Order: sequence, then C-alpha cells, then structure tokens
Amino acid sequence: MPQRTFQIGVIGAGSCTPEEADSAYRVGREIARRGAVLVCGGLGGVMEAACQGARDGGGTTVGLLPTDQKDDANPYVDIAIVTGMGHARNAIVAGSSDVIIAVGGEYGTLSEIALGLTMGKKVISLQGGWEIPGVVITQDSKTAVDMAFKLFLQ
Amino acid sequence: MPQRTFQIGVIGAGSCTPEEADSAYRVGREIARRGAVLVCGGLGGVMEAACQGARDGGGTTVGLLPTDQKDDANPYVDIAIVTGMGHARNAIVAGSSDVIIAVGGEYGTLSEIALGLTMGKKVISLQGGWEIPGVVITQDSKTAVDMAFKLFLQ
Amino acid sequence: MPQRTFQIGVIGAGSCTPEEADSAYRVGREIARRGAVLVCGGLGGVMEAACQGARDGGGTTVGLLPTDQKDDANPYVDIAIVTGMGHARNAIVAGSSDVIIAVGGEYGTLSEIALGLTMGKKVISLQGGWEIPGVVITQDSKTAVDMAFKLFLQ
Amino acid sequence: MPQRTFQIGVIGAGSCTPEEADSAYRVGREIARRGAVLVCGGLGGVMEAACQGARDGGGTTVGLLPTDQKDDANPYVDIAIVTGMGHARNAIVAGSSDVIIAVGGEYGTLSEIALGLTMGKKVISLQGGWEIPGVVITQDSKTAVDMAFKLFLQ
Repeated sequence: MPQRTFQIGVIGAGSCTPEEADSAYRVGREIARRGAVLVCGGLGGVMEAACQGARDGGGTTVGLLPTDQKDDANPYVDIAIVTGMGHARNAIVAGSSDVIIAVGGEYGTLSEIALGLTMGKKVISLQGGWEIPGVVITQDSKTAVDMAFKLFLQ
Repeated sequence: MPQRTFQIGVIGAGSCTPEEADSAYRVGREIARRGAVLVCGGLGGVMEAACQGARDGGGTTVGLLPTDQKDDANPYVDIAIVTGMGHARNAIVAGSSDVIIAVGGEYGTLSEIALGLTMGKKVISLQGGWEIPGVVITQDSKTAVDMAFKLFLQ
Repeated sequence: MPQRTFQIGVIGAGSCTPEEADSAYRVGREIARRGAVLVCGGLGGVMEAACQGARDGGGTTVGLLPTDQKDDANPYVDIAIVTGMGHARNAIVAGSSDVIIAVGGEYGTLSEIALGLTMGKKVISLQGGWEIPGVVITQDSKTAVDMAFKLFLQ
Repeated sequence: MPQRTFQIGVIGAGSCTPEEADSAYRVGREIARRGAVLVCGGLGGVMEAACQGARDGGGTTVGLLPTDQKDDANPYVDIAIVTGMGHARNAIVAGSSDVIIAVGGEYGTLSEIALGLTMGKKVISLQGGWEIPGVVITQDSKTAVDMAFKLFLQ
C-alpha cells in the first residue's frame, strides 16, 4: 500500500519582514529537500516565501486559498485549493497539516495556531512569533523542520 | 426600516468551572435584559450557562453547532444553526458576533478570539481568560456587557 | 425542558419573478403564523420575500449570509449569521432546516435541494422549480407549509 | 513564471457499480497521462477508482476529505486535505476543479454538479448520471477528458 505523504503546514502573515521571508524560504526549502509536502494558505508574505523555498528544493506546494479565485495563489503554489471560505479556511490549513510551523504572524496566524492545538497538532513557532502554552519555540529554520519530522515520526 | 438586532457572542469552553458558569450565566442574562441576541457555539459549559442566563433574562439564543445534529444543542438554545463543519464553525461564531465576550476558555476559545480580532471585532475577556494584545480585560460580568453595548454604539 | 423550535428553510434565487416572490411571501407568512422559525440564505429575491412574509406573520427570521457583511442581509432578517463562506453556506442552510421548501430557483437552489436530500431532509418544491426524484411537488404555498408541519411531526 | 497546474475534479458516489469504477479509473488514468492533477472527495467508490487510475497514469491526486481524519483518504490519495466540514466540502471540490467530470452519482454528486454550475464551471457527465441543463453528456471516458482539456484551453 502506498505511504501517505507527510504534510507540513507553514503559517504566517500575508505581508512580512525580510527576515521572516528568509526564515520561511529556508523552512520551505528544507521541507521539500526532506521529501514532505508544504501546505499553506496560498497567499503572499510568509506563504509565498515558503512556497518559493519548497519549489527551489524540488518539492510540492499546496495553497489553501480563502478566496474563490485560483489566480489569487502565489506563483509558487502547485496545487491551489479554492475554498472561498474566508477565515474559515484557517481550520482546513490546521487540519491538513501533520505538524505546523509558524513564522511570525498576526491574529490570523494565532487563530491557526489555536485551531491546530485544539486538534491536537504539534505547533512549532519561529522568529519571535506567538508564544502560546503548548507551542514549541525555536530560532532556527532547519531545527524547526528537524523537529517537525521527529514529532511526525513519533 | 426595521433595525438590525445587536448580536453579542459569548465564547468559552464546553466544560468549565462553577465560577466560569456563573460569570457566563450573568453575562447571558444581562445581554438578554438589555435586548441583544446571544450568539454562541451551542454546546455545554460556558455556552450552556450563557444560554440559560439569556433565557432567564427573556432573550433569544442562537447556537452555532460544530456537529451535524440539531439535538447536540444545549436545552437553552432557541435557534440551532447546524454547521456540521467542526472547528471551522468558530469563524462563523466570530463573524456573526458584533462584539465578543470570552469567559475563560481553552485553545478553541483562543481561536475564536483570534478570528474575531482578525475580522476587526472588539473582544472582551472575563474571568482570568486569554490575555492577547487587543483584548479588553474585565472581571465583572455586568461591566463586560456594558462595554459591549458601548463598543457597538460607537 | 424547553422545546426546540421547528425551523423551516425557504430556498430560492436572489432575484425572482413577481409570482415567485408572491409564493415565497405566502410561505413565509404561513410559517410564522404557525409558529415555526424561517431559515434562509438572507439575501434578496425569494429569500427577502419569504422573510417579509414571516415578519408580517409575526415570526422570527434567520439569514445565513454567504458574505462577511451583516449589512448584506435583507431588511427582514432578524438574526444574521455571517458565514463568509460563499457557496459552502448552502450546506448550512440545508443542515439547519428541519424541512426545506424550494420556490423556483437556479443552480444554487438545486445545490441546496441536493444537499438537503443527501442529509435525509424532506424537500418540498413549489412554483415550477426543480423536479428531482425525492422532492415533493406542490403548487400551493399553504399546502407546502402544511406538508412541512406534517413531515416534521411524523 | 511557473504555469498553474490544470486541476480536473472527478465526482461520484462513495460506493459504485463495477462499470462506474471502470469509467472512473479510465478517466483518472487519462487525466494523469495528459498531465493534469486529479481533484476529488478522497473517499471510496468513484473517488478511489479515479485516484487509482491517476496513480497508474503517473499523476498526482488530491483528496478533499469531509471528515477530520487524514486516514479516511483512500490509499491512492497523494495529498489529503482534511476539511472536517462534512457536506460543505462539496463546495471546495467544485471550487478547486477547473472542469468537473461526474461519473454516475447520487444526491451528493448532484450537489457538486449544481455548485460547479453556480460557480460557472464546465461540468461533463458520464455513464448515465445526472442530466441537468448545462451539463455536457458523454458515454466515453477518454472523450470526457478530451472535452475537459478543450474546455480548459478555451
């Protein structure tokens, strides 16, 4: 029987600092290099940087769009899921991620972290983002992806 | 033209302490006495206590259920919205509330607070709950409802 | 223990013929006179006419909006549920209706009929609308509401 | 700039006849051979047969699950989107498909056809399925996929 792919969610704001974009890019590239699929919200900022990294790492990217237009996906999204559901799509991002890595982020990211924790998902937070009880904190992109694989294989 | 009703969301965990239930009951009763509609997730704990209070205050209660069974609503829900959408219904709770009052709560409540803040809603937190930047904190049930009305009428 | 309200969904297009509006108005008014709650998509056309009828009949109306703006509700909606979920809200209309009455309608209405039938709901179709196997057909508004009550009380 | 993938939705019942499974398998295989991504509801019956065909054709399969369990996906799903939204996920299947091919199907399939048509999508129906005005009918799996490509490239 074919093995199910490991799906890592990368969450963060639709516009971000260069440092956050850099972290997200490294996270995305490492996810791809290690053979996991990148799941995200499909828009700009952290999502786009992570998708670009995953593309450069030779991986597959999934964008779960809040809008009803496939064209709203950033150019590095391979598979565009057009939810048309606005913020409710955050629950699908959380549900479709085996492990979640947050890069910075605002209230939307916080909602995804909280939804992930509600669902019993492991959440790793990078780069000075939300520090909520239950979230694992790290400063390094590669370490975050290492942790994600370890948590998934447990 | 008829005036739209003022809808106040009360959010909190499906099982709670007696103190939280008491706070939620008082919040619900005050909401009803002042003529607003109570919106909530329709289940037990804080949601049920708030609905019971609103019933006793002579008001109308709306329960936005995560399940696909109307019977899952607590007995004080007047109008049961059967979303069948699991955690994604939290976005509808936030979206349907003009102002949100949180009583304690766990990660699910945090997700509703964050979704509300993302949507630009005012969020008031009671009883030692989540203290997220942007959330107004108070210890008193009546004050929370007073604030909700003031924020709505602004 | 308080009795749960009987919730009847009225579905149909956002713009409609005068004959459809008249049918929807009569359906809404009869629903209210007999003490049930009217559930609908909250917009114009059939939805607005049904809400107006229910208002005139002294009842309560619930509008499940596809958009993220409460103000998109027609003026006869008492309780506005702001789903922000686009067409996915059709599943909530179907799920929240104990019985569904369709007045004319286009593809959106067909989707709600089909979702209702999938969920095992009874669907009554009026006024030359969709004739799908499993749908009960009638030409008269009062008969449709009579049927709805009989089907609910079974 | 990278080209967006062409996503074809294959819809149909979770349990089906051997003839429907055969049609779905051929549709899935042809989709994959011609380089499109298969989008479906991720469960058994028509969905599983289509995914198996796409796998055998060397393609990528996406399953949009109604449940909150990734493991509910059939074994030929590469990317599992865990919506946890029940029937509301039908709107995401329709929204995420550039063109929709229906193989037989019951009310759930009808709802996806109707949602697709509401969104302005082209819908092709195979194998004695729903004949709704606006749906293109064909008896042959390969022809259905040919049509899908022609409609997409228009």
